[in-house]
Amino acid sequence: MIWKVTLTYDGTDFYGWQIQKQGRTVQGEVLAALARMHKHEVTVHAAGRTDSGVHAYGQVIDFDSDIESIGPARLPVALNSYLPGDIRARSAREVDAEFHARYSARLRTYRYYWTVGEIVSPPEKRFCGLLTHHPSVERLNRLCRPIIGTHDFSTFTLPSETSENRVRTVAGATFFPLRGQLVFQISANAFLWRMVRSIAGTIIELDKIGAEPVEVEQRLAAQDHAAAGPSAPSCGLFLHHVAYADEYM
Amino acid sequence: MIWKVTLTYDGTDFYGWQIQKQGRTVQGEVLAALARMHKHEVTVHAAGRTDSGVHAYGQVIDFDSDIESIGPARLPVALNSYLPGDIRARSAREVDAEFHARYSARLRTYRYYWTVGEIVSPPEKRFCGLLTHHPSVERLNRLCRPIIGTHDFSTFTLPSETSENRVRTVAGATFFPLRGQLVFQISANAFLWRMVRSIAGTIIELDKIGAEPVEVEQRLAAQDHAAAGPSAPSCGLFLHHVAYADEYM
Repeated sequence: MIWKVTLTYDGTDFYGWQIQKQGRTVQGEVLAALARMHKHEVTVHAAGRTDSGVHAYGQVIDFDSDIESIGPARLPVALNSYLPGDIRARSAREVDAEFHARYSARLRTYRYYWTVGEIVSPPEKRFCGLLTHHPSVERLNRLCRPIIGTHDFSTFTLPSETSENRVRTVAGATFFPLRGQLVFQISANAFLWRMVRSIAGTIIELDKIGAEPVEVEQRLAAQDHAAAGPSAPSCGLFLHHVAYADEYM
Repeated sequence: MIWKVTLTYDGTDFYGWQIQKQGRTVQGEVLAALARMHKHEVTVHAAGRTDSGVHAYGQVIDFDSDIESIGPARLPVALNSYLPGDIRARSAREVDAEFHARYSARLRTYRYYWTVGEIVSPPEKRFCGLLTHHPSVERLNRLCRPIIGTHDFSTFTLPSETSENRVRTVAGATFFPLRGQLVFQISANAFLWRMVRSIAGTIIELDKIGAEPVEVEQRLAAQDHAAAGPSAPSCGLFLHHVAYADEYM
């Protein structure tokens, strides 16, 4: 049977999702856990290849399992007994063979969290950026507007991005306060490499200097990474949610 | 001038407060930071000697500084530039030479945090215990009552506690829900080694079996650690606040 499993992880101590020859990766730990659970190797696909240091609240994976005596309530418990504590399976459901965590994904949502103030307290340190200026949430949301829609996002990725086509569709981008922090939430069909951190860092920089939305339009139109501001650090970024067709939710 | 500084730290990667010959300690890092800042060694006292893995939200330290051109707003910023990210100075104020972070302390408050449910999510993992049973906050608070007051707390410390006198005065002990977690808050003039973790773990165990307060009374009266339940793990414990005479607050 094919399982769709939602994972949450603390990306701090990983070299990102994708398995590498050297260094601890989320995919490497998940493959090792699945292999111990199944007593043979298992293939896994993920909705998003999160970068080094980036976290997930709602990463989605799929894998084919030949363990028959296990239901959707028990599967995360079993998998968690093999996973390290910085990766947890939150939930599981059976899906049909058409499902692919990456190719079936309709909308990916990332969140970036900042603490506003003088210091980042140690419990927050692994999970947020720091803003030392007092942001205007109203201006930040105005600066988001030119980002929304279908655009060539070459400005907000690195020249080494392997995808030739840099056109993506951003369905929503918004800033809001949450439990004393500032959150940037952005949803798109897919993202280019570093795209969320580059957009987040650029908009924050433009807020700091009191820029208007036309500035974002011009930088986007440049289609050149030299027009972007500094990227926000990886520690504040979470892959928050991945949406699929209704039958898979 | 004598400074009173409030520190917050993530105790996960420390062998506790107290400096040791080997292993990373909070005191060791603070002394190293103060020495670099002052360009000579500086003596430091702390309100509480937190154990290995125990955190602080409001640890209080004092030290004598010969840096004259610095005020209370700037001192934490300067000190933080020398401290590692898992220790932050929150605030500072000048005090007179009578002040001693440990001996002037009137009331120490610790908090223990638990997540209630099936899994501890990775961002919480370093900072809470896990309760897999559904606790009764009302019963937990009834079980706290026999703890409050002046008692010999030998039951709730280890035989290796160096203090001969195991009588302490607990001013308050209460359980309450906070942001989806369960919190145990306990205040006393001073605590014995492991006392908070032992009381917290014992009361949780007694709640699980539906025990009545008389059970806590009997265990306390035993004055023997064999009568205690399992200690709660260090990761959920925070030195929350230390109170002094009004002139030092």
